[in-house]
Formats: sequence, structure tokens, C-alpha cells
Amino acid sequence: MLKHVSNVRRIAIDTLGADQSANALVRGALDAATADNGADSARFTFFGEARTIAPLLAESRHDVVHSPRSARVDDPLRGSLRGEVQSSMRAAIAALAAGRVDAVVSAGSTGTLLALSRHLVGTLPGVRRPAIVKGFGAQAGRRFSMLDLGANIGVAAAQLHQFALMGSAAAQSEGLVSPAVALLNIGSEVRKGPAPVRAAATLLAGDDRLRYRGFVEPDKLFLGEADVVVADGFAGNIALKAAEGALGMARYLLGRELASAQGDSAALGNGVLRRPLERIRDAYNPQLYNGAQLLGLAGVVVKSHGSADRQGFGCAVAQAMSALSTAMIAKVAAGV
Amino acid sequence: MLKHVSNVRRIAIDTLGADQSANALVRGALDAATADNGADSARFTFFGEARTIAPLLAESRHDVVHSPRSARVDDPLRGSLRGEVQSSMRAAIAALAAGRVDAVVSAGSTGTLLALSRHLVGTLPGVRRPAIVKGFGAQAGRRFSMLDLGANIGVAAAQLHQFALMGSAAAQSEGLVSPAVALLNIGSEVRKGPAPVRAAATLLAGDDRLRYRGFVEPDKLFLGEADVVVADGFAGNIALKAAEGALGMARYLLGRELASAQGDSAALGNGVLRRPLERIRDAYNPQLYNGAQLLGLAGVVVKSHGSADRQGFGCAVAQAMSALSTAMIAKVAAGV
Repeated sequence: MLKHVSNVRRIAIDTLGADQSANALVRGALDAATADNGADSARFTFFGEARTIAPLLAESRHDVVHSPRSARVDDPLRGSLRGEVQSSMRAAIAALAAGRVDAVVSAGSTGTLLALSRHLVGTLPGVRRPAIVKGFGAQAGRRFSMLDLGANIGVAAAQLHQFALMGSAAAQSEGLVSPAVALLNIGSEVRKGPAPVRAAATLLAGDDRLRYRGFVEPDKLFLGEADVVVADGFAGNIALKAAEGALGMARYLLGRELASAQGDSAALGNGVLRRPLERIRDAYNPQLYNGAQLLGLAGVVVKSHGSADRQGFGCAVAQAMSALSTAMIAKVAAGV
Repeated sequence: MLKHVSNVRRIAIDTLGADQSANALVRGALDAATADNGADSARFTFFGEARTIAPLLAESRHDVVHSPRSARVDDPLRGSLRGEVQSSMRAAIAALAAGRVDAVVSAGSTGTLLALSRHLVGTLPGVRRPAIVKGFGAQAGRRFSMLDLGANIGVAAAQLHQFALMGSAAAQSEGLVSPAVALLNIGSEVRKGPAPVRAAATLLAGDDRLRYRGFVEPDKLFLGEADVVVADGFAGNIALKAAEGALGMARYLLGRELASAQGDSAALGNGVLRRPLERIRDAYNPQLYNGAQLLGLAGVVVKSHGSADRQGFGCAVAQAMSALSTAMIAKVAAGV
């Protein structure tokens, strides 16, 4: 009788570098492990100030590594890469590189996380540049992912082509059989847009491994007609941040309306008005969408937003757990 | 005794090329004239199918020019520029070039409008490239304008510099004494972003005519800390469309909530819930923000969205009227 061999998902958690305390991040990670109902358990190694972390882990299977210095944006890059400047982030990535863990989750600086990951963990064979990828909810329950969201600025058509292959493979690992791939562009006529984007259209259309759908304009993203949207890191980051800013504006308007509506509805019962408005305001709570993966690295690395709270960081950790469960790295390696 | 000389604002209205009928566009323009309380009256010349337009203008001071063919996206460009292919759009722009009107408003193809305007009207002395500029509402009643929103792709730093001068001059013509100017970029650290953007930062910072504030990320746009935001046309269009798409998503969620809330509140009175939700849903009704000016041309040219309805087109016409009242062209000419 074959015994079920448990594959422990070993994840390094960088507890420093975020706006919130390590306490919130640790609790968020523990929440994610509790909520996860996968057959494979999760074992965390927390990097940071041991005296803060250890008390939160009583009688758990998780580990602590004392690495109390946060990676700082102004740390000299060479010194960080060479290990002359240590940080909780670097120690976590080194653990991944050494095979002591299978994933890293950090809320620290994206640029530093990228540089350290490329240097210590490296990219998958054939991958020239990792890309930041993130999942989004669209209308009618659809979802899409978009990459590159900021790791690379001004890439050539061939790199956009590889982003498409990585993104498509990652989407397949999440269950989509034949993901529809689109290129982010302005206008749908073929002659519009920057030269690399137009050239990439030809490459994607000619690649049988991809189901290329054509260009998609950023105002159509949330219709969810494409499963994977490919862009240069600058354009992708602009699109992501502009959408976030607009949703923040909508939430601001909702909050203002909520405040004045409470007065209106006092005679009729506060709950009636508040709940729908709060539901909408929270529907796009950025914390619930926290977490972006650095795709193309030889290991799972998830970047959490620096402003993540307990709930948000938990979402990022859940993403890392999911990437391990679906063997995303192996699929991306095969896809390029 | 000096007699007040009335400056009639003469505006050419292209009634074709939009999704909606000429009827809606004409009525929208007439609404704008009625709503305007400026000292100078507005006189329209409507270009399109005369038999459709004339009945709407009974006993008004407005004119009609019979030019029943719409500019089409696949019209040969050279033929259109040379006048071998006539359209209502071309006729309207030709009227501006000939000085028979002072402004043009069209809902037709942006690319065609730009090409025809540059060819027939030309740019202001010293202006290399016109840019698409648009105004936006931000939090706490603030406003900002952004350019270029799609006329130029991949410009150099010197062109971004000129966009800043044009945008700043336009904002001054609208009453801002010393507009705060920012460059759209990813990340606020100086070393981030594409090379032209980083080089433009130096140019703007060194120009005493500008109050340069630094970079602004797209998620901070709606905080309204900058009065004028400058970007390459590709990035500007991405930001604009992504924000529109996100707001469309928010309105979709609100609409869904509205539909289910009607059931909830039936026992308590339908109006209570509906009004706040509709207020928010309509607060960012794209129709109310319709209209973008092609800045840098030697005349006022306003581009309406192709999907504009009567109300939206009226907003675009109001923008043209306002640009004439504030002598925007003269100020932009002086600003560059």
C-alpha cells in the first residue's frame, strides 16, 4: 500500500520592510496556513527580529531565523548582492537559493527583491528577464493576469514574446487549458502603438503555443476577455497604478457618501444603507488583491505591497502556497 | 463712450463620425450655448447632412454647411489631407484654417482629426507636436490636467519639456497663477523610469517658467497634488484608459449592488438607497468628462469621444467655448 507522501511547502517569510509591524505579517502568514485546505502542509521560516516573532509561534511547526536588519532602498546594491550587507530579505532569498525553502514572500523594496533574487536564485533556463505578474478580478466573475508590472522598462518584442509564454504557462498551471493572451496597447488598429508592441503581435500570432487574441486597450481590461495581458514593465505599471488610483478615488467618493448617508438613514435604520456601500467599498480593497509573483525565477518569490496589513500579507502568502501546490515553476520552465 | 464690442465665439461643429446621431450632437451643442453665461455669444456652423440639421436650428443664429460624408478611419491619409477626399471633419477644419471660425469640435477619429488639423491649421510658432490634453476631477474638489494622452508615442525629453510649457500655459489661461507641474512616472526615486522621463525631469527643474514638483505615480493622480501632469502619449493614454476601465468596473459593481438593493429596501422606501448609489455611479459618468483639446495647434480643436451622447458632446462644446473665452491659444503661444 502506497503511503501518501506529504510534500511540505516550505516558505521563507521576510517579516521586515513593510509599513506594518512584523507582528501583523507573522499573524497574516499563520492565517494563510490555517485557511489553506491543501493536502500539503505549510512550514514557514520567519526572518526578522527573533524576539518579536518567537512568542507568536508557540507550539507550531514553524521556524525563526534571527536577521534583524531590514533591506533598505539606499543600501549599496553591490554590497547587498555580495552579502556584505545582510538583511532579512537577503537571508530569506539565500535560503531559497540553498534549497532550504521553496518560496519567499517579502514586503520590502521591489527593486532589491528582484536584484537579490536574480543574483542568488537565478532565472529558469532560457528566461532572460523575470517579470512581475498579478491576478485581477474582472466583470462577471472573470479573472485575468497581467505582466510585466514593473520589473523591466523598455523591452524589445522578443522579450514581450517570452513574457507571453511565461504568463500563459503560469495561467495553465492554475487550471486554464488554453489561456487567451492579449497585448496591452492603445487603440485596436494594428498600426497603432510602439514598435516593440506591434512587432510582438507578429511573434505571438505566429506561435502555436499561444492563443493570441490581439491587442487590448486598458479600458477593456476589466471586461475579462483576455486571460493573460502582456505589457512592457513601464506600461504595465502605469496601467496598474492608474487603475488603483481610480479605484481609490471611487472608494473616496463612496466613503464620503457613506458619511452623509448615515445622517439620511438615521430614521430608517443605519444598516440598510451602510452594508451595500461597504460591500462595494471593500470589494476592491487593495489588501485582498495584495501579492505579485516574480515570474521566471528558478523559485517562487512573491512581492507583497509595503502597505499590506495582516489580511493583505496573508493573501500574498496564500499566493506563494498556491504557486507551490500547482507546480507553477515547473510549468513555466516547460513553457518557455 | 466706448461701445462694448461683442466677440462672437464662432465654432465649427462636426456632426458626423460619432456613434450617436447628428441630432444628439446638434442638440448638445445648442445646450452648451444656452447654458453658457459668458458675455460673448456663440455662433455655430454645423457640418453634416443639412436636411437633418437645419430643422433643429429654426430661428437661431447658427449656420449649416452641407458636408454629408463622415471622415472614415480607412480613408487614405494623403487623399484626405489634399482634399481629394472630403468629409464633414475636413470641411470644419478648413473653415478654422480660413478664419471663418475660431474653433472646431469633432467626435470623429482622433488620428484623422490630428492629421488634418496639423496639415490645414498648423501648429503655433515653435510647437513641434500638438498634444491631447484633458481635465480631471480629483479628491477634495481639486482638478488636474494631463497631456499627452495619445497624440505622440515615444517622444524625447525635449518634447516632454514642451508639453509641460504648453500645459502650464493652458492652466494659467484657466486661472491658475503658478500651476504645479509633475512628470508621470513609476516610482518616485529619481533613478527609476524611462530615460526620456528622467532627462525631462532635469529640463523641467531647470526652467524658471515652470513650477516643477517632481514625479507623480499614476495611483496618486487623483490626490490632485499636481495641477498639470506630463507624460509621453503612450503612457498618458494607458493611464487614462486604465483609470476609465477601473471606474467602469466600479460603476459595474455599483450597478449590481443597486439592482439587489432595490429588493432590500422595498419595505423601507426605494429612494433612500438608490440616490446615494446613483450619485456615485454618475459622479464619474464619462459623459460629464467628455472632451479633450489638441493643444499646440494654431486654433482651438476639441476632440469628443466617439461614444458621446447629447450631454457629453455638450461638455466638449463647452470646453471649446471656454478655451476661446480665456484666450487659451494666445497664452499657449506665449508660453512656449
